[in-house]
Amino acid sequence: MRNKRIVADTLPDPVPGPGQVLVRTLACGICGSDLHALQHAEAMAELAKETGGPGGGIFMDPARDVVMGHEFCAEILDFGPSTLRQLKPGQRVCSMPLAFDARGISAVGYSNDYPGGYGELMVLSEPLLLPVPDGLPTAHAALTEPMAVGVHAVAKGRPEKGDAALVVGCGPVGLAVVAALRLQGLGPIVAADFSPKRRALAERLGADVVVDPAKEKAVDAWTKAAGAKQALFFECVGVPGTIHEIMRAAPRGARIVVAGACMEYDRFHPMYGVQKELSLQFVLGYTPEEFAGALAALADGRIPVEPVVTGRVGVDGVADAFAALRDPETHAKILVEPGTS
Amino acid sequence: MRNKRIVADTLPDPVPGPGQVLVRTLACGICGSDLHALQHAEAMAELAKETGGPGGGIFMDPARDVVMGHEFCAEILDFGPSTLRQLKPGQRVCSMPLAFDARGISAVGYSNDYPGGYGELMVLSEPLLLPVPDGLPTAHAALTEPMAVGVHAVAKGRPEKGDAALVVGCGPVGLAVVAALRLQGLGPIVAADFSPKRRALAERLGADVVVDPAKEKAVDAWTKAAGAKQALFFECVGVPGTIHEIMRAAPRGARIVVAGACMEYDRFHPMYGVQKELSLQFVLGYTPEEFAGALAALADGRIPVEPVVTGRVGVDGVADAFAALRDPETHAKILVEPGTS
Repeated sequence: MRNKRIVADTLPDPVPGPGQVLVRTLACGICGSDLHALQHAEAMAELAKETGGPGGGIFMDPARDVVMGHEFCAEILDFGPSTLRQLKPGQRVCSMPLAFDARGISAVGYSNDYPGGYGELMVLSEPLLLPVPDGLPTAHAALTEPMAVGVHAVAKGRPEKGDAALVVGCGPVGLAVVAALRLQGLGPIVAADFSPKRRALAERLGADVVVDPAKEKAVDAWTKAAGAKQALFFECVGVPGTIHEIMRAAPRGARIVVAGACMEYDRFHPMYGVQKELSLQFVLGYTPEEFAGALAALADGRIPVEPVVTGRVGVDGVADAFAALRDPETHAKILVEPGTS
Repeated sequence: MRNKRIVADTLPDPVPGPGQVLVRTLACGICGSDLHALQHAEAMAELAKETGGPGGGIFMDPARDVVMGHEFCAEILDFGPSTLRQLKPGQRVCSMPLAFDARGISAVGYSNDYPGGYGELMVLSEPLLLPVPDGLPTAHAALTEPMAVGVHAVAKGRPEKGDAALVVGCGPVGLAVVAALRLQGLGPIVAADFSPKRRALAERLGADVVVDPAKEKAVDAWTKAAGAKQALFFECVGVPGTIHEIMRAAPRGARIVVAGACMEYDRFHPMYGVQKELSLQFVLGYTPEEFAGALAALADGRIPVEPVVTGRVGVDGVADAFAALRDPETHAKILVEPGTS
């Protein structure tokens, strides 16, 4: 990302410092947050400055070059000083996209210092590396990060046996939430999206009912499926007005997990919350346990993730892929494979 | 309330139906919601229609007369048919402000059929009556309802030992929250209000630290007092912008209980919620157990409620009292004593 555009260029190779490891990116998913970042880079940087940034660390200066990409599977190439080297060169790894150094924590993929997975080489922190089990395709391992987002969103919703879920929006975040709900054995799961393709993906990942909000209100479909169960809703859209719509339509006592990332001021009417005693739990990221759990679930085949990857590009294809991802009928997750062209 | 004004008039005596009891109001607090209702009656009625109203029941038509008042202590006068009559005439009682009949549940004080406690006579439902223990002053018993609101707000915040509380706004709701936090032994309790009088009341009710937001940011004062404790914040202001301000200033992971009743559309930036994983729990009312618990706590002297009552008026004084309550320096809670003049 250079001057708010995606460009392909050759940069100096990153060098692993103490406790760090040099890796080659094998595959890296393009995340909706990266599309956001291209549009709202300054606002994101300002917010991160004010609130401490993802992981509480050092955030990018969008005026300088950023190699994005934080959903990756990589291969160990080399070790920096003061490393334990329990994993060997050639080992495939996943990692939370964070890098530690003397200055603190940086967000890999949203950093001016730590290139992300759209590039060929990355530097990661050795203690965060998780070996990818043999047999798990690299393309699926690269989905660990977005799946961890879903696992975390569900956990923050404090799910109980008596809950019936509604997932509003079936982009990658919504799909990950559906998969995580299914992992927990929660149901019924109702998923809403205007796109037939995304509704079909939601079904593949475990939704019991899918609904086209152009034809039926999402909450009406949920009410039919839920019976007497409690409402656990997930906002996975992230555009202004969605939170208000969900608050207005939600039944009494609904818990609403806000996993969408609305980058603008939004409007809502607090009295819908008050009258129905709603709760809004905003969520971001995941814990190390949730990240490792998502990788393990993928490795065990407990997440039928195969149909989620809808495209693969090399470094030169990233800019076009960003454009293509704006059409929900064509794509869900596009992987960047920097080693290909 | 007649045509959006407070007027004193003589209406026919209400008649208790099956399972109902006729009572004489001894004292009834003027609630901030009643001030809201006078300004926003149509909006409240529309919201109640859409969301089911307080208690899920029948709500007032603001175009017709409403005798407001739902924070009362009363005395039993007479019984309707099919009543158990375990309490005797002359017994002082409190009750959740709800009345049941063949049509459903009505909100006493926000009903065209069930006059509230600003009038001399009310009809209540026998199963809801709680005897007021001897020795508890009537004026304190009348505070059962607002104190129950505080008890409920604290319970919905799922308080834990490691929490430090910030109460933003020390009107009657904020004061009740402070008292309820103290009842639970939670601390430190930081309370913020622009009014010196209300800050003094917050201290009397149990705040460990009070802060004038004109001199120091409420969250800064909280941070000093909280040490490493978790943030449990209470929004007890209910004007547009307050939720956003609190979300912006809150630390990571803060749980924010919204007890203020903002009757207008409001503006907020969801990314403050997302970046800091905040939660908003909107609250309304109380459970029967919380209501009875508030009365018991008042009777045991566990809530130092005495300074909260800052004025008493007869029926003819209600309109002036509404006006006087807009000045936080003069009043906290004014009781209507319809038997006096």
